[in-house]
Amino acid sequence: MENFRFLSPTEIVFGRGTESLTGELVKRYASKILFHYGGGSIKRTGLYDRVMSSLRQHGVEVVELGNVQPNPRLSLVQEGIELCRREGINFILAVGGGSVIDSAKAIGVGVPYPGDVWDFYAGKAEPKETLPVGVVLTIAAAGSEASKSSVITNEDGWLKRGINYDLIRPVFAVMNPELTFTLPPYQTACGVADIMAHIMERYFSPTGDHELLDRLCEATLKAVISNAYRVMADPHDYNARAQIMRAGTLAHNDLLSTGRIGDWASHQMEHEISAIYDLAHGAGLAIVFPAWMKYVYKSNVGRFVQFAHRVWDVDVNFENPEAAALAGINRLEQFFTDIGLPTRLSHADIGADRLEEMADKCRMTNGDSVGQLVKLTRRDVLEIYKLAV
Amino acid sequence: MENFRFLSPTEIVFGRGTESLTGELVKRYASKILFHYGGGSIKRTGLYDRVMSSLRQHGVEVVELGNVQPNPRLSLVQEGIELCRREGINFILAVGGGSVIDSAKAIGVGVPYPGDVWDFYAGKAEPKETLPVGVVLTIAAAGSEASKSSVITNEDGWLKRGINYDLIRPVFAVMNPELTFTLPPYQTACGVADIMAHIMERYFSPTGDHELLDRLCEATLKAVISNAYRVMADPHDYNARAQIMRAGTLAHNDLLSTGRIGDWASHQMEHEISAIYDLAHGAGLAIVFPAWMKYVYKSNVGRFVQFAHRVWDVDVNFENPEAAALAGINRLEQFFTDIGLPTRLSHADIGADRLEEMADKCRMTNGDSVGQLVKLTRRDVLEIYKLAV
Repeated sequence: MENFRFLSPTEIVFGRGTESLTGELVKRYASKILFHYGGGSIKRTGLYDRVMSSLRQHGVEVVELGNVQPNPRLSLVQEGIELCRREGINFILAVGGGSVIDSAKAIGVGVPYPGDVWDFYAGKAEPKETLPVGVVLTIAAAGSEASKSSVITNEDGWLKRGINYDLIRPVFAVMNPELTFTLPPYQTACGVADIMAHIMERYFSPTGDHELLDRLCEATLKAVISNAYRVMADPHDYNARAQIMRAGTLAHNDLLSTGRIGDWASHQMEHEISAIYDLAHGAGLAIVFPAWMKYVYKSNVGRFVQFAHRVWDVDVNFENPEAAALAGINRLEQFFTDIGLPTRLSHADIGADRLEEMADKCRMTNGDSVGQLVKLTRRDVLEIYKLAV
Repeated sequence: MENFRFLSPTEIVFGRGTESLTGELVKRYASKILFHYGGGSIKRTGLYDRVMSSLRQHGVEVVELGNVQPNPRLSLVQEGIELCRREGINFILAVGGGSVIDSAKAIGVGVPYPGDVWDFYAGKAEPKETLPVGVVLTIAAAGSEASKSSVITNEDGWLKRGINYDLIRPVFAVMNPELTFTLPPYQTACGVADIMAHIMERYFSPTGDHELLDRLCEATLKAVISNAYRVMADPHDYNARAQIMRAGTLAHNDLLSTGRIGDWASHQMEHEISAIYDLAHGAGLAIVFPAWMKYVYKSNVGRFVQFAHRVWDVDVNFENPEAAALAGINRLEQFFTDIGLPTRLSHADIGADRLEEMADKCRMTNGDSVGQLVKLTRRDVLEIYKLAV
């Protein structure tokens, strides 16, 4: 086991009607805030009005910035930074999903920084301070409500890059599972894939002898899978929605990787797909992860059999472990299909004509390779994209 | 699922040699501190010197208060409160296990409170502020390093009472599994029982339909059990010690009860045993928990079969579920025996002569009953003590 530091200070305020507590929570930090959100869905559902009413009750002055898009854009972040500076704002409330929260985090570190906020994402500088960010979550997916991650897309070259600093963990997260009742099934499914991918990136680790983390990952995966089927059958199933939402936070607040390194190659490979095609991140992961597994499972058959057996109840098959490992991968793929996700680029109407370009752009986070369970070269990445066609 | 708030702000600094970081961590909060510890073991092992050296390097002035006993006493807490006031101290460093940390938390809330600190434990007042407490942990057991609990024994009547407030969660916890290498096997085993009891109190909940928490609890229990056998075979097994230590924190920081209520009858019943006989808390739990299970399992056979099957790999036995439930309870009892713990009062040389007195003193936390899975009356409590003879 590796040494680690773990800090997860986000206050989770979870359950029915909790958005009415937003004003009280915000008021601890500021009386004038940036209210950051995405498209019009929070207005259609009435959430916008309920949050505004709670803020008003507590005398919080609000400046709005909406229009965050999926794969949130640098240009809007820069607009938010200017707006906060101009208005003297010191707190950002993100009402939405991962894109809105990631955009809020980027604005948060950008405001006190004299240079270009993209410096952080390009790895040229490290943020030393941030405006505090609070969250009202509307989808279980990215885990950004308590994570130290933010991923932003730079329209100049369509580069999608992330940062990871404890500094940017939100100070609170209001999480009402009822807010996810009205999500379209496809968005729910994309969220489920994102959650599972966050766990699997941590599970397929080269750091061995950590049964506790293995079992915690398997436990969370199993609960997400069974509750995903429930939610697909009944979108208003509160307990199922609640468990998926709770799992989404656990999947990415780093609890499940304390003491070992993760893989993260699939995330890097997916970033290049969704940056070019503007595909939902979760859908991209449902395409990339099975392809990655098929390419690397022979390097650690035991771990893939464990995954098949403990997560998918596949028999161990002592005579032919590789068959069991493959059966687990097939079960994952079938699950993604069952909940309505693409598992091939072609299912998402993406052709094979830009695979070389994606392989060129895929960030080699180890210098000349990406991933940890298997260190993939550009050539390996290209082969995985080909398996995903 | 119930609504909940969850806040776990303790910074975990985990791994080999991390005690050398104590000075740096303390210095963020204070330059004069109370160094609180137990008997002489930290001096024998050299930990005292290493922590002192780290504090000195960072220019931290130290006032010492040792001699915390297992089942920490109110009188020493009161001495600590006076000492902090007299010396103008605003930070407490607890170097030890649950008793030292609980004592430090009590001093922390006592210093700014004009009344008697026992008011909090007697339920007569609520703490509104505290001195921050930091921890260097020497045993995996109570989970106090990140919990909101503190349990203190009042020598006047030998009353053992606890408080639970987010306010008293430590600000950091330095956790080096190597520090537990030299623990006597009996103390290690008591710690394991304490950790498992914290999980089982949360697992045997009347709040149904929460597969995520069920599986997280089962995952943690399984990892503790297998790593306990490893540690008993080789006390210097770092990865096994590390997993038990990590599990000890998770078992009691409330992650495993977010969204549902726990039972906690066994803890209340155990408190009366260890308050009278000064038995180690973990040993008392190894005696009480199986007796409690035998008394209540028929009220929810399904849950006890799930426990038997998922934690202990007992076959489900669809024809006779009660047999499977009992098999799981027997496996738990056998496990405690395997690691050297008593599972009957008689194993700990405790007679049956004060059962009525313990039943009289057992705190009825629901007013006229204790526990949640089954609400036990005084008469039930007495029957359970009799099963434990």
